[in-house]
Amino acid sequence: MFLEKLEKSKNIIISSHVNPDGDSIGSGLALYWAIKKQYPEKNVRYIIEDNVPYNYKFLKGTDKIEKYINLKDEPKADLFIVIDSANFKRIGRVGEFKKDAFLVNIDHHISNSNFGDYNFVKQSSSASEVLYEVLTKILKIDIDKTIAECLYVGIITDSGSFQYESTTKETFEVASKLLEKGIDKDKIINHVYKSRTLGYIKVLGLAFSKMNIIKEKKLVYFTLSRDFIIKEKIQKDETDGIVEKMLEYVGCEVALFLKEEENGKIKGSLRSKEKVDVNNVAKIFDGGGHKRAAGFTTDLMEKDIIISIIERI
Amino acid sequence: MFLEKLEKSKNIIISSHVNPDGDSIGSGLALYWAIKKQYPEKNVRYIIEDNVPYNYKFLKGTDKIEKYINLKDEPKADLFIVIDSANFKRIGRVGEFKKDAFLVNIDHHISNSNFGDYNFVKQSSSASEVLYEVLTKILKIDIDKTIAECLYVGIITDSGSFQYESTTKETFEVASKLLEKGIDKDKIINHVYKSRTLGYIKVLGLAFSKMNIIKEKKLVYFTLSRDFIIKEKIQKDETDGIVEKMLEYVGCEVALFLKEEENGKIKGSLRSKEKVDVNNVAKIFDGGGHKRAAGFTTDLMEKDIIISIIERI
Repeated sequence: MFLEKLEKSKNIIISSHVNPDGDSIGSGLALYWAIKKQYPEKNVRYIIEDNVPYNYKFLKGTDKIEKYINLKDEPKADLFIVIDSANFKRIGRVGEFKKDAFLVNIDHHISNSNFGDYNFVKQSSSASEVLYEVLTKILKIDIDKTIAECLYVGIITDSGSFQYESTTKETFEVASKLLEKGIDKDKIINHVYKSRTLGYIKVLGLAFSKMNIIKEKKLVYFTLSRDFIIKEKIQKDETDGIVEKMLEYVGCEVALFLKEEENGKIKGSLRSKEKVDVNNVAKIFDGGGHKRAAGFTTDLMEKDIIISIIERI
Repeated sequence: MFLEKLEKSKNIIISSHVNPDGDSIGSGLALYWAIKKQYPEKNVRYIIEDNVPYNYKFLKGTDKIEKYINLKDEPKADLFIVIDSANFKRIGRVGEFKKDAFLVNIDHHISNSNFGDYNFVKQSSSASEVLYEVLTKILKIDIDKTIAECLYVGIITDSGSFQYESTTKETFEVASKLLEKGIDKDKIINHVYKSRTLGYIKVLGLAFSKMNIIKEKKLVYFTLSRDFIIKEKIQKDETDGIVEKMLEYVGCEVALFLKEEENGKIKGSLRSKEKVDVNNVAKIFDGGGHKRAAGFTTDLMEKDIIISIIERI
């Protein structure tokens, strides 16, 4: 059905979620190039709500990704494809252009609501891994080096370089097939993993120098102050991933990263290794997430947050 | 030839290199279990010069690895197998027990001297990847979960979680086959990557907080003082890998980690991303290594080391 619809369509819009990551950019761009390659006569546009993060800009075609607020016309579509989004709302205002187009939903999130007219949803390491199957088995599009590099970025970023639980034998099989396409793996690794900004380096340095350890509870925590954020001009995404690094400490089961927000609230990110269900912990503060990764925002102060968490774990 | 010799042998000694890493422990132990499984009547010993690093001790059988100085008898062998060592000297004093035994050399280093009576040497991500081929194709030993976990540790540690240049499509294929054996991948990831000691955390925190940046040369450097090492009781292996982390900074092409040694000298570790040949840089101080990773030890002071390097890159 997807193949037929694709062949009949003239105007195609691809979109993926707000706050894009390596998998949404990688899978969206891979799909863009795949359609451009097989159907050069079709009008394909890849439109997203936000900017492409700087460390994925090396991928061929990121200059073709359109940002919602920069659009100069109203894009039309008879086929609208959403990738890497558990629900339709996750693509933000780009959803306005769907109108009466046929909606295709390609995703790897278990919580996906099957919101499409056609859904290809499979629990996998990444949307890129799912798309690999769609391209090879359903759309029969030959994967070239450009497409393979996009998919590889999606797979490595969403699998944490093959370290996350979601990594399966299929993930490795796809990675192997992508290397066969002659991709420049080392260039990709340099851009994705060796592109830490100075802001990130400073935050991690401070967190590792000053983190608190509650030995009896195997809890480590650190609070990033508003003062430091302002003084060092720390950007929003420069604190991403710090909590995962804290979890690498051998003596911890739970890692907590707290960040003072502009509005006086504190934002918390929780991670656990194998025992504590941090989704339950986050619920104390009306937050949530998954067993091993959850978050919350609260009016409480650091001291009170820690007391509550210690009681709970 | 290896298979015949193995079948005829009664006493077998396995050894791997001094200062063991995840690949030497993983491949050595995988080989130990494989022979024990197929030939339960044979006397197999796995003997090394040094201790097993603490984060690999979770592997089944590390309590069976014998340390040279703790031996209570003189081990005898008619078959002596060296794995993950580019030359025979790399196994240290354990080499004394070789005597007139048949020598098998299994390795992945391109510089391997083919020192064995039988050599199975192939450039690969890891000795574990090479051993996978030996076990399945030559010795026809069925790989069970225990063996697979050992091999997996070897592969992920020596490929930098599939990020090093040496990672190939075959590496992914073997990883995929190992997952099929039902290994507990998440347990392995926790032990290998989430077992950072407090000493390592402190050194990385300090390095990231204080590292110097020579913008025009894209050089970052940091010197770990003797004072800090003593005050914080930093162990020898707790500074391993810090230089690779420094290289993750987007603005750098060359990272240099300097460490004040007990004897008043300075030990330097150099890494580069894609252009600078740090082997050539290390030669200034009579050091050496590879293009992207090299080291040296010098009597010079930090200031003079930096001046020399800046002139060179």
